Amino acid sequence: MTDLQIAKKVQLQHINTIAEKLGINPDNIDPYGKYKAKLPLSLINRKQAEKSHLILVSAISPTPAGEGKTTISIGLNEGLNQIGKKSIVVLREPSLGPVFGIKGGATGGGYSQVLPMEDINLHFTGDFSAIEKAHNLLAAIIDNNIQSKTTSVNLDPRTISWKRVIDMNDRALRRVIVGLGGTTSGVPRETGFDITAASEIMAILCLAESLSDLKQRLGNIFIGYTFDKKPIYARDLKAEGAMAVLLKDAIKPNLVQTIEGNPAIIHGGPFANIAQGTNSVIATLTGMSLADYTVTEAGFGFDLGAEKFFDIKCQSAKLNPKAVVLTATIRALKYHGGADLKSLTAPNVEALKNGLPNLEKHLENILKFKVTPIIAINRFATDTDEEIAVIKNFAAQKDIPVALADVWAKGGKGAVELAQLVVNAIDKNTSQFTPLYKWEDSVTGKIETIATRIYGAEHVDYTSRARADLKKIADLGLEGLPVCIAKTQKSLSDNPLLLGRPKDFIITVREIEIAAGAGFLIPITGDIMRMPGLPPHPAAENISIDDDGEISGLF
Amino acid sequence: MTDLQIAKKVQLQHINTIAEKLGINPDNIDPYGKYKAKLPLSLINRKQAEKSHLILVSAISPTPAGEGKTTISIGLNEGLNQIGKKSIVVLREPSLGPVFGIKGGATGGGYSQVLPMEDINLHFTGDFSAIEKAHNLLAAIIDNNIQSKTTSVNLDPRTISWKRVIDMNDRALRRVIVGLGGTTSGVPRETGFDITAASEIMAILCLAESLSDLKQRLGNIFIGYTFDKKPIYARDLKAEGAMAVLLKDAIKPNLVQTIEGNPAIIHGGPFANIAQGTNSVIATLTGMSLADYTVTEAGFGFDLGAEKFFDIKCQSAKLNPKAVVLTATIRALKYHGGADLKSLTAPNVEALKNGLPNLEKHLENILKFKVTPIIAINRFATDTDEEIAVIKNFAAQKDIPVALADVWAKGGKGAVELAQLVVNAIDKNTSQFTPLYKWEDSVTGKIETIATRIYGAEHVDYTSRARADLKKIADLGLEGLPVCIAKTQKSLSDNPLLLGRPKDFIITVREIEIAAGAGFLIPITGDIMRMPGLPPHPAAENISIDDDGEISGLF
Repeated sequence: MTDLQIAKKVQLQHINTIAEKLGINPDNIDPYGKYKAKLPLSLINRKQAEKSHLILVSAISPTPAGEGKTTISIGLNEGLNQIGKKSIVVLREPSLGPVFGIKGGATGGGYSQVLPMEDINLHFTGDFSAIEKAHNLLAAIIDNNIQSKTTSVNLDPRTISWKRVIDMNDRALRRVIVGLGGTTSGVPRETGFDITAASEIMAILCLAESLSDLKQRLGNIFIGYTFDKKPIYARDLKAEGAMAVLLKDAIKPNLVQTIEGNPAIIHGGPFANIAQGTNSVIATLTGMSLADYTVTEAGFGFDLGAEKFFDIKCQSAKLNPKAVVLTATIRALKYHGGADLKSLTAPNVEALKNGLPNLEKHLENILKFKVTPIIAINRFATDTDEEIAVIKNFAAQKDIPVALADVWAKGGKGAVELAQLVVNAIDKNTSQFTPLYKWEDSVTGKIETIATRIYGAEHVDYTSRARADLKKIADLGLEGLPVCIAKTQKSLSDNPLLLGRPKDFIITVREIEIAAGAGFLIPITGDIMRMPGLPPHPAAENISIDDDGEISGLF
Repeated sequence: MTDLQIAKKVQLQHINTIAEKLGINPDNIDPYGKYKAKLPLSLINRKQAEKSHLILVSAISPTPAGEGKTTISIGLNEGLNQIGKKSIVVLREPSLGPVFGIKGGATGGGYSQVLPMEDINLHFTGDFSAIEKAHNLLAAIIDNNIQSKTTSVNLDPRTISWKRVIDMNDRALRRVIVGLGGTTSGVPRETGFDITAASEIMAILCLAESLSDLKQRLGNIFIGYTFDKKPIYARDLKAEGAMAVLLKDAIKPNLVQTIEGNPAIIHGGPFANIAQGTNSVIATLTGMSLADYTVTEAGFGFDLGAEKFFDIKCQSAKLNPKAVVLTATIRALKYHGGADLKSLTAPNVEALKNGLPNLEKHLENILKFKVTPIIAINRFATDTDEEIAVIKNFAAQKDIPVALADVWAKGGKGAVELAQLVVNAIDKNTSQFTPLYKWEDSVTGKIETIATRIYGAEHVDYTSRARADLKKIADLGLEGLPVCIAKTQKSLSDNPLLLGRPKDFIITVREIEIAAGAGFLIPITGDIMRMPGLPPHPAAENISIDDDGEISGLF
């Protein structure tokens, strides 16, 4: 059965019932249909939240074989509920664009899904659209200011770094010239579109803790320089108030349910390579205010999403994570160990063993943050007992708890052992979360700490452009911001072809972007894709809907 | 008090209560928060709908002084309810873009508003966003097809008429070049963005009667020609199914309430100059299935919106309108009579009398459709008794019912007389709705009928481009489609400077666009703006929100 077919068989509970499970009066939620709702920010209770155990689900370096991090997060939450714990899962919202490219959603899989999955994967409650509108309003205000003689702030169009966004895989919009058509239709200049998940507004929404914090961050967005080199921020164009109005509902976290009828919160979906890659702080704090265990995930491998989760999000929002569940699959480890993508379903103990150093490095990295790791083997039907034993032995040698998680096929029942290991680890109270670096370190110091200690690089090289950016950052007084390194997710290094645990490599920083609103700097290494394209036969060709509203071809 | 301040004082009723007033079980609606809901298409009952009296609210030629057509529509509905009739008002959705340009919403005014007005004027239930996404998905599929070697349909990029849309006043996007950046980022070509209300998808959604009808129309969208001159439609790119999936909720009409707690349906918002300018057929039929009187409006003056309402929408959906309420203001008639915009609040009987021919021409036009007219004078505080008497005498001479409607200040109580006149006119059963032309007439025949009989033109000229378009339409076999003439709303002619009742003028058709999906041809006269810009000081500068979610500066 496909994920959609499994999802369709589930008798959904009314969202009021789900809210009541969290002790929320249904009068206090804003329903979006019968199975989705927005939660009020007033549910956040810092004191209560501090008592909740925050569990981060991360993964080894992702491969085309797939790790199933979201599926594990949902399954672990079901498992915790199965063993009688009050647990909630807090996840990112999927992006719409990729749905029409290559078939596949982002709401878990099999019997570990969040529902209603087709709505969550399509428009959901409109958060992405609101973010897109707020982003593009600032773009329109910028071009309008260049156009206007009377209100111009003297912005040099060649220095504008703010692009537009659209939640669509549309490669033809990557680089465009706008403002053609004569004097009444703007000033011609080159710019481009990113996909909405890559918007700085998305990153801002996910770090903001209140409407006023949001507005402040929106005002801090750096736009470019005047002709006489004065920096211009969104507040200089009086844009932040109207942008915040557009985000008044998007800032509220969304309540849905898992297949087993447990509450789930889904909110925000920033990229994990150029942004912090986790759901909103507001969603995390809401979940923590309502449950004893809060399961969340960070995008891509531990080196990308989790490092940013710890060093940016946890520091920003003063969160104290208690455990990391590191998702691994036997298929993906075989791929890291040199096996061919087409032969991953065949038993191959040698390739699996050769792939273990990738797992090992991520485990070492977790310990650098002084948080307790637990390995979750996301089970596939083709895994052999011998292969499973290889990972279990490896974990036993390292004294790290490991569980086989059969959550795709069995839901929460497949995660009971994993859930118990997580509870045991938290009960032992061995985590003493410590960030890797201090925000007040120098920018190069912060970059080098991550590159050498997490990625395993020898050292860091900077292009001349990156050196110029370092000077610009110093001139703007933004050296105290944390760094959000943009790097390929496919490798621990900045070269996507280096699988396993690469060594003796250098990280090259090509440029450093400023996300002053979000509150971080983005050192860019390698080629980072911010606007995907559609494949020759896009999934859209097979998607349809009948007169009864039944969707086909989606997932 | 501002409209927003008046709206804020109202104690809103829960949307379930509003649904129950229409005899709808709240289990059958999809709530969007507490005060908005989507209605299921299953509420449409053709037999019931045929018993409902459909009333169209239109207006004289609009002027900067404003006519308040939406306010009159809402007030009339309140008035009908006040005199004990079961009435519903069915309206268009406002566009988001203009909200940030020049202050002002599109949800009525004073004590004749639909609520919650700030939500309706912002993202509402996401319909505009869904239309935007469906539109831009087709654009991405088109550019992807040009890019792909293996799946190309051989489309000549120079012939593509499909642009992209965004619901933002953003003049810099009117004309753009996309596809820059080398071979992996598309094929460079010139194109542009329209505002979302101008999307053909909006026109399609508003004429579709079911999901399958919608899908069929989406497939019929004309895109351009192959290099060997074969026409390409959206169905040739297999785009219509995925587009329909994106519109699965947007196709459902939205239920809200008026200030006096009466149900109102708001759905769809196509432009009235380049599209049919009225709410969706589905919304009209839903309203007619639920109430004895259904009040609706058509955009701009009678010559633009109402002509299209009758000749395109009523013929397409087999609707039988019973009365037209023609909205006039003393201020606007004085402007048509030559008074200066700044002096319109001063009494000026002579200018008023000079402006009457505009009103007269619209009344004559209504009678050409064999529908009964009623004049509504939308009252302003500065109107004098003498001025009011001038219009009343004029109406008496013509034997046309006229009522002073004080709906801004008094709501339904200010429209009791108007409501009674409308009921009386319908009771007399004098309307025998007859379209102006037959769809099977020739294209030039249809254009000339509208131009001479409705606009009052001497004859119609065609540019050489328009003549080439006529041939193209014939070659494509699309001559049987109705025509949706794009013309300035400011004048009965195609020259915006000719106020009052212009005579001895010629209408020039510059080109004819094909909206094969919507099912009409668009002869273009004059300059038609499809992407507005922001003013030097956009309203956005003064809009904000506080930490309690209270919005300021909006409307």
